[in-house]
Amino acid sequence: MAIILGSHRYGKAENRVVRIYRDTARHEIRDVNVSSALKGDFAPAHLEGDQRNVLPTDTQKNMAYAYAKVVGLNTIEDYGLALARHYVDDVPPVEGARIEIEDYPWERVQVDGEGHDHTFVRKGQETRLCSVTVEGIGDAQQTWVTGGFKDLVILKSTGSEFADFYVDEFTTLAPTHDRVMATSLVARWRFTGTDVDWDATYAGIKALMVSRFATLHSLALQQTLFEMGRAVLEAYDVVAEVRLSAPNKHHFLYDLERFGIENHGEVFHADDRPYGLIQAQVTRDDAPDAGPAWDAYTGLV
Amino acid sequence: MAIILGSHRYGKAENRVVRIYRDTARHEIRDVNVSSALKGDFAPAHLEGDQRNVLPTDTQKNMAYAYAKVVGLNTIEDYGLALARHYVDDVPPVEGARIEIEDYPWERVQVDGEGHDHTFVRKGQETRLCSVTVEGIGDAQQTWVTGGFKDLVILKSTGSEFADFYVDEFTTLAPTHDRVMATSLVARWRFTGTDVDWDATYAGIKALMVSRFATLHSLALQQTLFEMGRAVLEAYDVVAEVRLSAPNKHHFLYDLERFGIENHGEVFHADDRPYGLIQAQVTRDDAPDAGPAWDAYTGLV
Amino acid sequence: MAIILGSHRYGKAENRVVRIYRDTARHEIRDVNVSSALKGDFAPAHLEGDQRNVLPTDTQKNMAYAYAKVVGLNTIEDYGLALARHYVDDVPPVEGARIEIEDYPWERVQVDGEGHDHTFVRKGQETRLCSVTVEGIGDAQQTWVTGGFKDLVILKSTGSEFADFYVDEFTTLAPTHDRVMATSLVARWRFTGTDVDWDATYAGIKALMVSRFATLHSLALQQTLFEMGRAVLEAYDVVAEVRLSAPNKHHFLYDLERFGIENHGEVFHADDRPYGLIQAQVTRDDAPDAGPAWDAYTGLV
Amino acid sequence: MAIILGSHRYGKAENRVVRIYRDTARHEIRDVNVSSALKGDFAPAHLEGDQRNVLPTDTQKNMAYAYAKVVGLNTIEDYGLALARHYVDDVPPVEGARIEIEDYPWERVQVDGEGHDHTFVRKGQETRLCSVTVEGIGDAQQTWVTGGFKDLVILKSTGSEFADFYVDEFTTLAPTHDRVMATSLVARWRFTGTDVDWDATYAGIKALMVSRFATLHSLALQQTLFEMGRAVLEAYDVVAEVRLSAPNKHHFLYDLERFGIENHGEVFHADDRPYGLIQAQVTRDDAPDAGPAWDAYTGLV
Repeated sequence: MAIILGSHRYGKAENRVVRIYRDTARHEIRDVNVSSALKGDFAPAHLEGDQRNVLPTDTQKNMAYAYAKVVGLNTIEDYGLALARHYVDDVPPVEGARIEIEDYPWERVQVDGEGHDHTFVRKGQETRLCSVTVEGIGDAQQTWVTGGFKDLVILKSTGSEFADFYVDEFTTLAPTHDRVMATSLVARWRFTGTDVDWDATYAGIKALMVSRFATLHSLALQQTLFEMGRAVLEAYDVVAEVRLSAPNKHHFLYDLERFGIENHGEVFHADDRPYGLIQAQVTRDDAPDAGPAWDAYTGLV
Repeated sequence: MAIILGSHRYGKAENRVVRIYRDTARHEIRDVNVSSALKGDFAPAHLEGDQRNVLPTDTQKNMAYAYAKVVGLNTIEDYGLALARHYVDDVPPVEGARIEIEDYPWERVQVDGEGHDHTFVRKGQETRLCSVTVEGIGDAQQTWVTGGFKDLVILKSTGSEFADFYVDEFTTLAPTHDRVMATSLVARWRFTGTDVDWDATYAGIKALMVSRFATLHSLALQQTLFEMGRAVLEAYDVVAEVRLSAPNKHHFLYDLERFGIENHGEVFHADDRPYGLIQAQVTRDDAPDAGPAWDAYTGLV
Repeated sequence: MAIILGSHRYGKAENRVVRIYRDTARHEIRDVNVSSALKGDFAPAHLEGDQRNVLPTDTQKNMAYAYAKVVGLNTIEDYGLALARHYVDDVPPVEGARIEIEDYPWERVQVDGEGHDHTFVRKGQETRLCSVTVEGIGDAQQTWVTGGFKDLVILKSTGSEFADFYVDEFTTLAPTHDRVMATSLVARWRFTGTDVDWDATYAGIKALMVSRFATLHSLALQQTLFEMGRAVLEAYDVVAEVRLSAPNKHHFLYDLERFGIENHGEVFHADDRPYGLIQAQVTRDDAPDAGPAWDAYTGLV
Repeated sequence: MAIILGSHRYGKAENRVVRIYRDTARHEIRDVNVSSALKGDFAPAHLEGDQRNVLPTDTQKNMAYAYAKVVGLNTIEDYGLALARHYVDDVPPVEGARIEIEDYPWERVQVDGEGHDHTFVRKGQETRLCSVTVEGIGDAQQTWVTGGFKDLVILKSTGSEFADFYVDEFTTLAPTHDRVMATSLVARWRFTGTDVDWDATYAGIKALMVSRFATLHSLALQQTLFEMGRAVLEAYDVVAEVRLSAPNKHHFLYDLERFGIENHGEVFHADDRPYGLIQAQVTRDDAPDAGPAWDAYTGLV
């Protein structure tokens, strides 16, 4: 029996890069949190403290900011692809690179009914996500891109049931045919390639998911999640797989009958913990192998 | 020398009340975090553990939910006024009550270009705030209401300077005539009375502040804050005073010249800490006394 | 009616200063979060954007780090006093300065039963707090110091009651003579002067409060708070006043009888929100005026 | 091409169970955050909204609290094993169960130099972790247990270098032979079986890691991580594999020379973001397959 080094990687996490486009008086802003992780021939660093193959994480920080200018941040996916390919192509000890990006959307401030040229407020709704993983050199190079969002807090005040469930001796929940259903949705999807209109696809997928959540009469959050994923796969050939993680943010009807007050689905307590947590993957049966696409680094994306 | 009980109060903090209006198929949602604090004849509880005058905080929880139905949550201010008056008017040991409310705005989901009847997403931008303080009974009863918001993240990518400042031997900052100015604004204002169109006034004040932030060529965040406050007071007679607290969320130009890359105000590092923090009050010179209006309870509002 | 600038101040918040003492092989560490705020002749900055009197917050950052060496961080109070006095004494436009410090304690790592010379772990328990406020020059200079801590999570599993309280028609709580009482205590106290053995006093006050919490049979959290404050004032002449803020972190007995399982105070649900929140001041009847001692800047201290 | 349901599971996350042992006057406390996730024949819930096989997450909540009494919370691992086996053995549609536990340690309050019988403070240092995964029935049943901790903030003020690293044209970092090295360590390990003295093993592993961090002269955080893992595997036969994730919490030497002040490793700025992030696995070369042991559910453990 020997003790050996297993899988290992390192990088710079959470570079807070803000890119202003100011070629005209009408500025644009991109605001991201970008992390890079490298795999490769770094065993000597672990085994002997030999850093000769280790590109400092400080250099990776420099790269994240430099490429925001050199490559630009028009789309986070193209920026991420450029960063990942740079490490694999240009830094010999690197065999694989993963870039993870959180993208915080902003919107123009309204002044006299018009969007202002150079003033913005954080939109504050969901955070857009992407990951890019590149492995190998030249013809053997492989690339995986995932997109997604998190923290989209969505609620329907009717059109949701939960009944006819399994009952054992510890089950005390009453079935219901009309409840509030709410979640803080994390949705991620894996692209089949990189020839994608990134921003339009993102906007379309989000709108489709939100619409499906709204219009499906839900017998269970499980059902809603599957239908959201299916809708995306039916509409977007460039998506191979959808992964959803949805906390069931419980809204408990507050008992007002004790005070002689009717409460027909009007007053709720929004509870913090515990919460139901439903996770599901929806996929094409012929989806290409996921490889390292889902091998999360920071836990943020 | 004696040891005495000084100022004291107690209550129930952070009741997470969600109110659905469902009188028609087109639902409405209000989502608040409400806290109540009572002052009065509670010295025996502290000095001897005698609870006879103490209305349990559990009862205050019940009230927060019950009044969301009985009074409704059409506006947080009217709901807060009703709650505060109930405690002072109906519970004999209570001499003063303070209600603090955080209000989380939601918006309708868009389905086929139309707002959905009963599905909503959290807007996620600023949190609206209000406090209501009521003291005394009958003709001697006094009422103070404050409004405001927090966590409005706003940025202008040009139109901001910082130069000609005081310099001592520890000053190393370079003056600048074009910088990114960003803050996560906390703005609060004190009303002169309660005869106010609460929602319209809130929307108007917020829009005015945002507009002023955008359009003023700023020589300092200090100047911007004062002008935002002044604009509100000039436009709204119902406001006696504005209080602003603005962290200067530093965006540092990233040094790319080391790599032969130009960076003319395009790539920034958004730093977390430390941050400048500017606080100012703008007031009418004949504003009525603030009394306990600003005596914060939870620290959230 | 005119619109005027009211109270205003500015500074640098949350400088994360770490000081290593390494004069011998046995190092010491101090780890603080320090903020400074200045008051004075800064109206021109607000009214006209004139910065000539404004010492940049960047300079205040430099000072926080420089004084960690020049003055040292042996005690946070002496360091804070030096910083505050520097601004008031050495920077002419400054009329008053406030320093707020969060102090994160560390402890030596144990290796073979002995404390290691230069390796430490964050203690992780309460955060120690202090504020220093200095106003005026020369003989007219006045100084206020407060100490305290926050986030001390303390619980007693018996020896606590809550009964015989006020009951109205919305009261549904059952009285109890044996409950879990838990809080995340914030305790702050105001010193009468600056001739204090800061570290010993801090340790003594904390130990006294904890001991009083433990040994008092509590009829109400209100009573416990008062007795903790009284104990401090009786033991420490250098303390004029104690302020306590205590969330009642509810531990609800979980109903297991539904499953035929006894639960005599053994299994609880620790709820997040809402929570009771009790606030009280305990003071000497001849305490000197608090002046600006409690005029919090960052909200952290 | 068909769209199919992939991997899926559901459960109740973050049940905040507090267990008091009060058989004698000397109470004990266990304070955990427990989550359960079930796998099995739940496709109908997703595909058709058919809940007949779905044991409600509300029932799983009841179980978490009930088993804190029935099984007890003497060790989180035995409690987790009992919960996981219950679901797999007693609920027919369930084929696999995962229990994730965060364990918050408390310590007795000191009163007159002795530990108090029933008053405790949260220790506040690292959070202990465990996961239990059980799959299959009867002889085919397999079990995986992982242990670990997170949020152990540890720092050494000397005895750490970073030099002789890879340099490219974007590298600006200066090599150093004496720096502050700090991290907020996440360490997790996989047990080979369940016949383990859980609490003693936890204490021993933690002490060993901390000791190794302290005593190894470090040429890189990578090296330190590997040596910590190796030490654990050498000392504990019951551990098959160690996984470490370590943010390099940068402490930047503050430039005081600009002010004529020496700073020989004494005053640092503790930066928030970005941070280096090193991840490594250390394993036995004959370690049994990890199976689903690392298939995290909540992301907390």
